[in-house]
Amino acid sequence: MLDRHVQSEAAALTRSVAGTGWAGTPFADWFADRVEVNRCLVERVPLDELRGWRFDPGTGNLAHESGRFFAVEGLHVQSSYGPVAEWRQPIINQDEIGILGLLVREVDGRLHGLVQAKVEPGNITTVQVSPTVQATRSNYTQVHQGARTRYLDLFARPQDRVALVDVLQSEQGSWFLGKRNRNMVVQVAGEVPVGENHHWLPLHEIRRLLRIDALVNMDTRTVLSCLPFTFPPDRARPEDDGIMAGLVRSLLGEGRARSTLGEVLSWFTEAKSRHELTSRRIPLAGLAEWQRTPEEITHREDRHFSIIGVRVEATEREVVGWDQPLFYPKGRGVVAFVVKNIDGLAHLLVHARFQAGLLDRVEMGPTVQCNPDNHPKSRPRFLDEVLHAPGERILFDAVQTEEGGRFYRSENRYLLVDAGEDFPEDVPDDFCWVTAAQLTALQRHGYYVNVEARSLIACLQSLW
Amino acid sequence: MLDRHVQSEAAALTRSVAGTGWAGTPFADWFADRVEVNRCLVERVPLDELRGWRFDPGTGNLAHESGRFFAVEGLHVQSSYGPVAEWRQPIINQDEIGILGLLVREVDGRLHGLVQAKVEPGNITTVQVSPTVQATRSNYTQVHQGARTRYLDLFARPQDRVALVDVLQSEQGSWFLGKRNRNMVVQVAGEVPVGENHHWLPLHEIRRLLRIDALVNMDTRTVLSCLPFTFPPDRARPEDDGIMAGLVRSLLGEGRARSTLGEVLSWFTEAKSRHELTSRRIPLAGLAEWQRTPEEITHREDRHFSIIGVRVEATEREVVGWDQPLFYPKGRGVVAFVVKNIDGLAHLLVHARFQAGLLDRVEMGPTVQCNPDNHPKSRPRFLDEVLHAPGERILFDAVQTEEGGRFYRSENRYLLVDAGEDFPEDVPDDFCWVTAAQLTALQRHGYYVNVEARSLIACLQSLW
Repeated sequence: MLDRHVQSEAAALTRSVAGTGWAGTPFADWFADRVEVNRCLVERVPLDELRGWRFDPGTGNLAHESGRFFAVEGLHVQSSYGPVAEWRQPIINQDEIGILGLLVREVDGRLHGLVQAKVEPGNITTVQVSPTVQATRSNYTQVHQGARTRYLDLFARPQDRVALVDVLQSEQGSWFLGKRNRNMVVQVAGEVPVGENHHWLPLHEIRRLLRIDALVNMDTRTVLSCLPFTFPPDRARPEDDGIMAGLVRSLLGEGRARSTLGEVLSWFTEAKSRHELTSRRIPLAGLAEWQRTPEEITHREDRHFSIIGVRVEATEREVVGWDQPLFYPKGRGVVAFVVKNIDGLAHLLVHARFQAGLLDRVEMGPTVQCNPDNHPKSRPRFLDEVLHAPGERILFDAVQTEEGGRFYRSENRYLLVDAGEDFPEDVPDDFCWVTAAQLTALQRHGYYVNVEARSLIACLQSLW
Repeated sequence: MLDRHVQSEAAALTRSVAGTGWAGTPFADWFADRVEVNRCLVERVPLDELRGWRFDPGTGNLAHESGRFFAVEGLHVQSSYGPVAEWRQPIINQDEIGILGLLVREVDGRLHGLVQAKVEPGNITTVQVSPTVQATRSNYTQVHQGARTRYLDLFARPQDRVALVDVLQSEQGSWFLGKRNRNMVVQVAGEVPVGENHHWLPLHEIRRLLRIDALVNMDTRTVLSCLPFTFPPDRARPEDDGIMAGLVRSLLGEGRARSTLGEVLSWFTEAKSRHELTSRRIPLAGLAEWQRTPEEITHREDRHFSIIGVRVEATEREVVGWDQPLFYPKGRGVVAFVVKNIDGLAHLLVHARFQAGLLDRVEMGPTVQCNPDNHPKSRPRFLDEVLHAPGERILFDAVQTEEGGRFYRSENRYLLVDAGEDFPEDVPDDFCWVTAAQLTALQRHGYYVNVEARSLIACLQSLW
């Protein structure tokens, strides 16, 4: 039953960076070294044997004995939106707000970010490029008695810093109940000591790492996406009427958007008001569509995801080893923006997406966000347009993974697809054409742009 | 037991408008006529005898038989914030989003709003000045089979209109669970037929009505507050260094605020992250601190509020008569902004206020928001500064009532108090000095400014 999986992937990384211009750079050398050092053993163990975790005898909820970290509970959803009117599902409840913080500093006129090589048990490649600090409240109040998170003081102290980004943003609304994290970019003027797990890299180069599969973690992507784009000085800006030039204008907020920001907000308010979605926390034990064995919790039709247990032995974490449950999604998802030049200015086709775990039920999501395996009978809207687009219209295509501290090998194929001229400007009521700069403006506030769309914005910023 | 209360208050209104400049105006005549016509009989009936409502035998929750409108349930709150770490309370659960819509039109270069004379059973004076449209989803999908709400089409149709305001805003976080309504101001170009319950009035004059006790309802106040202020052309603008001149600059967004909007947002994110508050819906039947009799539900120490039943016979409502429960608060609350000129620009002292029913737990509230009777042992911060301020520092002082469709005679004394020079600029971490224009900018988005603070912003706009 146990699936012993040693995740040391330096060789795989070396393969994936070969030919990308990264091979042999100080960053690639540092990262390869970190992958070697931060060996991590992740083995699957039955849920019933997770040390420190227990199923509540009454509710069947799965929680840590300390009451901290997170708990897996049940959610009962009733919705007037979408093909399924009612369902029950397990959901992760994590009330506390964590910090995802990137330290930046200007060197030679360019902003550099201090990235971290960080291990998470659910990662495909174990080590990923992470923000400077990634800490739950349990981390930084030291519930699990590890070392104090490095650099955290630079984010936690309200004085003494310039916060370029400081906003609560949601995370996966299908798997988390009202989860939000504090996305921060903090600028420091002076030197800071750099530990061996940290490395300064120009922001533009951090962004370009997104072109490599599964190298940059979700937390880095969401934090980067909140920072307005500046065009990299080492690249030539496209000045024609093509889609790439339109995307640069879109990111920089140039030109006249199809809808004003006020019209976009009104469209969003209308979309939120049009449907009802009510959800109620229920015991994990009572979910008709789900079954629990000593090993795992699975959907009876083997869809959506299962909940598994892992035992982790890490070398560089705050604590030496731990057990925890993880959500293990079925199959690889597709997350895509359809983009279209309208009068020379690229617009993204945003979807007002209901998700049961989102705080206000609806956020702006990508044009397509689904796992095709979960929809055997119907095709989600625009999925075929995205998957069948000819190669020259695919502007970005890389596999990214979701939060490896909660999800086990959760992979999504992230795509930016040029709609082409035949794609209609008129779209269904739940969709709206917006510019990248409009989305970035909204990301100054929480709960407008969902985490998948934020990841795609970061991917878009990586194109130059 | 029955408290038969005929609410025909034309005489009271006539008294209150005497000497305000309103007496004898077409508006005052129209309104006095509406008060006469819209007679309404509200009598208290025991909860057990409410027609159409029932207590669920299992949970004790009080809900309408149709499943619509709203339900009274229980809420269990645990908080690391404030003096009380844990409590249980009844709470109103109303998932559906209603529309609070004001129609505006430019006449002779000035915006006019179409107000409505509207009866609600909880009102002190029965009829109040209301927005053009005030409709829950149950109203406009006609669950209670009344007439279709007039003018609603002008708000519900996404095309054909200019929405100056279109945003979901929260309502009382102590009494509502995640309640939000769609605040709308829609501008029309042409004539619209005016029914006898509606009246056009210049926006500035609608605002000035707030100086009269209990005349303008909560929905009008929140909608007005979302609309940026323009200085009325029929008033002379104060140009000295005094507090009134500072308030005009503050409303108009002139001068340099003490904190940038980014710093205010960072302060707010920090305040949200600092504490934890978790709440869970529980059965109404199991609330240790509360007791239910056939007549009402009350707090065992007779604090906070009780839940009572009323029977309504109205003449002009969508339906002729109905029964419903109402929350009946104990005593009169105090809602106040302390304001202070900082370098000639007035700032409001905003409080990051935790309330269990708010969607994201915290919104920016007034400096003081409390019912002093609920705090026999401790004085809420800044309450004494507000209540004991000398008369010349009290800039606004009127009693306003909260939503009469859910609350029975819920009165708050709304105050704007000049802090004076001795009041310190350094304030506790949960407080922040912001300008009125900064608050208005944030009100473009939902869930930043709570309903009490929004009402005070409307009061502030009424000063000229």
